[in-house]
Amino acid sequence: MNIDIQLLPFSPDSFSLSKKTVVVIDVLRATSVIVNAISQEALEIIPVATVEEAFQRGKDFPPGSVLLGGERGSKKIGGFDLGNSPREYIAEKVKGKRLILTTTNGTKAFHLVSSGREILATSFFNIGAIAHHCLDMRTDLLIFPSGDEGRFSLEDVVCGGMLIDHILKVAKGSVSLSDASQSSLILYERFKENLVEALRLSTHGQDLMERGFEEDLAYCAQVDITNVIPKFRDGVIRAR
Amino acid sequence: MNIDIQLLPFSPDSFSLSKKTVVVIDVLRATSVIVNAISQEALEIIPVATVEEAFQRGKDFPPGSVLLGGERGSKKIGGFDLGNSPREYIAEKVKGKRLILTTTNGTKAFHLVSSGREILATSFFNIGAIAHHCLDMRTDLLIFPSGDEGRFSLEDVVCGGMLIDHILKVAKGSVSLSDASQSSLILYERFKENLVEALRLSTHGQDLMERGFEEDLAYCAQVDITNVIPKFRDGVIRAR
Repeated sequence: MNIDIQLLPFSPDSFSLSKKTVVVIDVLRATSVIVNAISQEALEIIPVATVEEAFQRGKDFPPGSVLLGGERGSKKIGGFDLGNSPREYIAEKVKGKRLILTTTNGTKAFHLVSSGREILATSFFNIGAIAHHCLDMRTDLLIFPSGDEGRFSLEDVVCGGMLIDHILKVAKGSVSLSDASQSSLILYERFKENLVEALRLSTHGQDLMERGFEEDLAYCAQVDITNVIPKFRDGVIRAR
Repeated sequence: MNIDIQLLPFSPDSFSLSKKTVVVIDVLRATSVIVNAISQEALEIIPVATVEEAFQRGKDFPPGSVLLGGERGSKKIGGFDLGNSPREYIAEKVKGKRLILTTTNGTKAFHLVSSGREILATSFFNIGAIAHHCLDMRTDLLIFPSGDEGRFSLEDVVCGGMLIDHILKVAKGSVSLSDASQSSLILYERFKENLVEALRLSTHGQDLMERGFEEDLAYCAQVDITNVIPKFRDGVIRAR
């Protein structure tokens, strides 16, 4: 098994991707929202690129069956039902509902890797379940941090390093790591005793603190609070 | 002063680049060759993208005044005077000569960042001198690791982290680090007591060992053996 992690969020070569399991990470906060919403029994999540597309897609479904969620500039979008804090995505609101989600980085990332053999969403919330599932897949793995408006995001790569660490501890066969994977593992080692420190140090974490979302950092640093495996297929994320 | 490091080698936005000092790094081995050759009083180095271009450019100069150097698949190119081991670039061979150099990653990197305000070459050999010069420039800094055929290269980013570490120790004003810069610093901290370990662990270092260039790894891990500042301008690298 080869594990690579793509440190900047541009679309990988689609031919090589078609043989790989791809894991998308946006700890702050899109994949934390997605994992939480699926664990709270949301029916499905449709990640879209633009606010306009979210409103358009919302009209395709019966009123009351669909919620619009996401952010621009970290804040809830006018006319939307939910923002981009995973703390909002509780069963009372999302159970049985279809969510249409648009965020600055995370929701776009799924479309960048749409030619992957299997495309999964992780955050710290479900990392153990995803690690076991990646091993079961018996394919090469590409970890895809969503980044921060095209830039490298520390918190996503630390989460990627944790996924690699978990896989190495359980893998029975040999695992080959790229330089980027080795580096992610070292970054995870640096923060593993205090994950929230990585979130507070990161540029995007600092932006969130300035905009009043400090509580989201500690919330998003929770590890293994669910075993759900959100899978993206044909434009929709559902529990596997 | 803002310091960023671009972790994958594609051409940055040229508008923002025009205000920045750019430092190109290819520890294994193009910028180690370049720094060594300049310290051994080579007249100038012309980095070119292809073998054909190297032969063409060679014809522009009087016979005996020019040497062709570089590699493909890490090996010396047929008809060339020198390979890509910095150990070959000694004064007896290169002093007063014009070198035309073509390598898989490093020589291309200079052309990718050619819109930078000032473009410098570093390796571990001249890192202290480059750190002081970057501070004197009083501009933002982009560190540009050349990568390994488009992929992230551990050894270049560890060298970039060392450059950041040196700058932080000497800087009098405030220095702002991107997430990528913070991460490079952490990777440097991990290997600072044993730089050659990073070179041996890296994919490209392992390739070089397999191809018989193991001695180059320890050679390229030497720190501060010269104070030269190679500067790329109008397609040519000369001592500043």
